[in-house]
Amino acid sequence: MNELFRNYEGEPLYIQLYMYYRDQIINGTLKYGDKLPSIRKCCSEFNISKMTVESAYMQLTAEGYVYAKSQSGYYVSQISDLPKNANVNRVSEEYEEISKPEFDLSGSSADPDCFDFKLWQKYIKNALRCEDRLISYGEYQGEYDLRKALSDYAGSQRGVVCRPSQIVIGASVQNLIYLLCSLEKKRSSVIFSGSPFRQGMAVFNDYGYKIFKNRGEYDGIADVNFIYTSPSRYKNNGIMSITDRINMLNFAREHNSIVIEDDIDSEFCYISRPVSSLQGLDGGENVAYIGTMSRLLLPSIRISFMVLPQKLADEYRLRGNLYNQTASKTEQIALARYITDGKLVAQIKKARKVFENKTKILKNMIESEFNPQSIEVSDSGFIVSFRIKTNKSPENIKALLLQNGIAVKRVSQSEQKEVEIFVSSAGVSENDIYKSINLMKNTIYCT
Amino acid sequence: MNELFRNYEGEPLYIQLYMYYRDQIINGTLKYGDKLPSIRKCCSEFNISKMTVESAYMQLTAEGYVYAKSQSGYYVSQISDLPKNANVNRVSEEYEEISKPEFDLSGSSADPDCFDFKLWQKYIKNALRCEDRLISYGEYQGEYDLRKALSDYAGSQRGVVCRPSQIVIGASVQNLIYLLCSLEKKRSSVIFSGSPFRQGMAVFNDYGYKIFKNRGEYDGIADVNFIYTSPSRYKNNGIMSITDRINMLNFAREHNSIVIEDDIDSEFCYISRPVSSLQGLDGGENVAYIGTMSRLLLPSIRISFMVLPQKLADEYRLRGNLYNQTASKTEQIALARYITDGKLVAQIKKARKVFENKTKILKNMIESEFNPQSIEVSDSGFIVSFRIKTNKSPENIKALLLQNGIAVKRVSQSEQKEVEIFVSSAGVSENDIYKSINLMKNTIYCT
Repeated sequence: MNELFRNYEGEPLYIQLYMYYRDQIINGTLKYGDKLPSIRKCCSEFNISKMTVESAYMQLTAEGYVYAKSQSGYYVSQISDLPKNANVNRVSEEYEEISKPEFDLSGSSADPDCFDFKLWQKYIKNALRCEDRLISYGEYQGEYDLRKALSDYAGSQRGVVCRPSQIVIGASVQNLIYLLCSLEKKRSSVIFSGSPFRQGMAVFNDYGYKIFKNRGEYDGIADVNFIYTSPSRYKNNGIMSITDRINMLNFAREHNSIVIEDDIDSEFCYISRPVSSLQGLDGGENVAYIGTMSRLLLPSIRISFMVLPQKLADEYRLRGNLYNQTASKTEQIALARYITDGKLVAQIKKARKVFENKTKILKNMIESEFNPQSIEVSDSGFIVSFRIKTNKSPENIKALLLQNGIAVKRVSQSEQKEVEIFVSSAGVSENDIYKSINLMKNTIYCT
Repeated sequence: MNELFRNYEGEPLYIQLYMYYRDQIINGTLKYGDKLPSIRKCCSEFNISKMTVESAYMQLTAEGYVYAKSQSGYYVSQISDLPKNANVNRVSEEYEEISKPEFDLSGSSADPDCFDFKLWQKYIKNALRCEDRLISYGEYQGEYDLRKALSDYAGSQRGVVCRPSQIVIGASVQNLIYLLCSLEKKRSSVIFSGSPFRQGMAVFNDYGYKIFKNRGEYDGIADVNFIYTSPSRYKNNGIMSITDRINMLNFAREHNSIVIEDDIDSEFCYISRPVSSLQGLDGGENVAYIGTMSRLLLPSIRISFMVLPQKLADEYRLRGNLYNQTASKTEQIALARYITDGKLVAQIKKARKVFENKTKILKNMIESEFNPQSIEVSDSGFIVSFRIKTNKSPENIKALLLQNGIAVKRVSQSEQKEVEIFVSSAGVSENDIYKSINLMKNTIYCT
């Protein structure tokens, strides 16, 4: 190897030569108008082939560093000064650790025992065989077979009234809210009714909406474009009552607002049967219904869907092709068949049983270990909250627990020397419940 | 089955009973304060079990339609009027046809012969085995192993200077632009330099930016927050010259703007070696670099990535957890290994050869069939444009071609009685090139 090219080791020879001249031009050693050595001279000087030199010169010319004068040779172009800190050295990589709690009681992951991976893998493998579909971009709106399957599912299981043409698929609920905002040109206010959804708020905030948090009182807020609500996580994580539902729908109708119904966890409400959707109650005119597979299947499956009211679906038809589909086509194809084969309904049925059982165990275990001041299970059936006496602050408790490998959903001060702890049974296996609650007790009382 | 429940056929018995009373409350047959029959009476009246009635009453209570008075029974709640068009009937499904052209010369799909499906399937299958990773939500920023692999890839192949911590993964380029806008609080203007990208413009438009389209002149535009450019599709689909590159970077530096470098198709530029990125030339301070797998692998693989300048990466650290990851975790895991194993570089090398060959055939075929006024191949190597004499309008030609199963990229009027047709070799197999150009000739001249 030529000594001059030492910096460019590992690259093909012509690229080494190209870089050698390029860097001389960038650092000013070669200036505007300077002539490069002729191809023949360059060959003999560096002892390389004519083709190698020609390739390097062609590259320099294509990028505009030099230009060719016919019958004369290659000359350095007039290029303005490079930015001062232009820097082609590689930055060294830092190490980033990904820490995962041993016991996840925060509800942000799924229980591996509850989901049939083998079955889902089978559907993905089948989807991967649809090569004719996978070679192209998908439909902007989402694959038709999946929209058809979802409209049937949402209709029969959640009482949602819709056509496949009203459904838009997206990789996340947040992504769908971006899309919804782009269809609605008014940008005044949005009300978050019930538990606030941070990532939803971020979108409205980015779009410049005024955000109001409230618990069912709408008076005095002008120009409400959207009301965001999760009926299964309404007041204190309870289900929204029919009175609240009807009041909200009537308000939306009178004020020409859109209710965004985030239907998360409705399928798992612990009462005998999930309450039907607001969208169905309304007839679909003022409600945008949003469902997600994150909880129903796996958090790592990035597929959510939105049912648009007809007037917004018409608007979507006009300009939806400006918005890329974000969900994986392979996963869309797999999910469509999974739903059509009845596997989604079966999976939910199974999961409900597992969650019910785990929540019961979690509650019993907390009662026996902590003997708490009070204990409550949310309507959605995942979350157990309990109040205990302690001198420690909520922040301190949360940090101590994390240090010991336990992630909880929330710790808050309820009264002086009393905190309320929220834990979820969703992401923890039955076995780990015993271990984690025991460890939690020792951490809070013995450290 | 009880005659009264005929409307609710197919549902479990307790749900039929629940619906029977619910609908009576909704339609006003049962009014506020009315008492439901006692459980015993209901059992005997409908000849059903006590448990069934209790389940139905529990559901009605949970949803707020009725309330229980102890020692007395169940009474209808006070619920406001339902919205007038409340409608729980199912909407009938319409049929939607998905039409796909037989010959896709528009460049919006991939060539099945060019991509090794079997190999990709192997990587997906392996990723599906990582159950411990798939049960949880992914990192907001994207999986670390993929960010590491992409920073190595972009560094060695595209001269991008970055750390994994500066990389953000997303399902689409558009999705990443949303994120970028949310990190930049100024909302004045954006310049689209070179070929405009419609879906990118849609985002800036939604955020209220003023959009300027230009070809390299920035004078007179105040407060430029972003300059959007694709260096491999610059003027007339040619590569951006080093002078234009440096001018743009200097402008960005002086005006504190961010250059968004959309690096699409750079890997396929037909000259000997792809031109290095603007980001590397700049040292990464004022450039957000965006790459996508849609063209490198398959359009249906929804993974793109963005390299943030350090100052925006710091901003992202503070609030990135407000933005959901949209890319499939399975596909992220698979892609990380695919890149680390050197398969991406090998695939690109193979694809370059295939594209080069197909573009040559496409050009030769057009020359022999049309004998055009002029013919040109774009620097990015996919697109052949040619001008022919005809009395037909561009719109008419495009429609006629579509009717005959041919999608082209663009048809425009070049002079009177002369149109320019743009076709891409990306999505069409070698065999289909012959058939489609022949059919194209017959369609234009013989219909």
